[in-house]
Amino acid sequence: MADDTFYMKQALMEAQKAFASGEVPVGAVVVCRDRIIGRGHNLTEMLNDVTAHAEMQAITAAANNLGGKYLNECTLYVTVEPCVMCAGAIAWAQTGKLVFGAADDKRGYQKYAPDALHPKTVVIKGVLADECAQLMKDFFKKRR
Amino acid sequence: MADDTFYMKQALMEAQKAFASGEVPVGAVVVCRDRIIGRGHNLTEMLNDVTAHAEMQAITAAANNLGGKYLNECTLYVTVEPCVMCAGAIAWAQTGKLVFGAADDKRGYQKYAPDALHPKTVVIKGVLADECAQLMKDFFKKRR
Repeated sequence: MADDTFYMKQALMEAQKAFASGEVPVGAVVVCRDRIIGRGHNLTEMLNDVTAHAEMQAITAAANNLGGKYLNECTLYVTVEPCVMCAGAIAWAQTGKLVFGAADDKRGYQKYAPDALHPKTVVIKGVLADECAQLMKDFFKKRR
Repeated sequence: MADDTFYMKQALMEAQKAFASGEVPVGAVVVCRDRIIGRGHNLTEMLNDVTAHAEMQAITAAANNLGGKYLNECTLYVTVEPCVMCAGAIAWAQTGKLVFGAADDKRGYQKYAPDALHPKTVVIKGVLADECAQLMKDFFKKRR
């Protein structure tokens, strides 16, 4: 069984796609029974849509793939701590497990909505946190 | 200049479309300079997607219409208090004004994320609250 680091690397690959397109580099994958059933990276600039975060894309793709809108048996991997919007979506999807890389002290859900997730969602923090954070730092340094 | 009641009636019309399709009856419109530039109603069942709330559809439509992703000059009218996810989206869009009808004590953002909105967003509550709430009650009564 592949481990959390393996799938976080997959999420990082998604984040790198965002980086390459000039988007804030956040990536996500949804995994169900050791298979990636949804991928997404931030597309807010390209789609001109504030709702087009990596997690939203990955959740929508996974539900589409499963043919059901609940992700109880799934794990969402995302390179950066989800924002309030995405935490709300993760809750509505009743996501079984959330694994995130870098914390986001400014926009992360833990600050504004610590109880937003579904109570049954297992949360693992800090997987490949340095790599995930470094990509963000590189992006914002480039933009300055 | 049309008033908040006028546009909330438009949001209610959207909610009625949801009701007629067997969706939880929530509707939204985005108004910019006295013109409706985005409409949406809950489509979570039809799209099999937990992110397909009325507000999300309306925000995406409005940004698409404007050609810009920020809604600083706009008002979002929604028949029911937004959830945490939608409040997060309303914040990202820097929505100028939020007007909602019925409160949602169970899933509304005010309980889980009272500070989720952008600090500059003006919030008006309770416009046509009874009509908005009644549609929800009728829907859930029918489903029992």
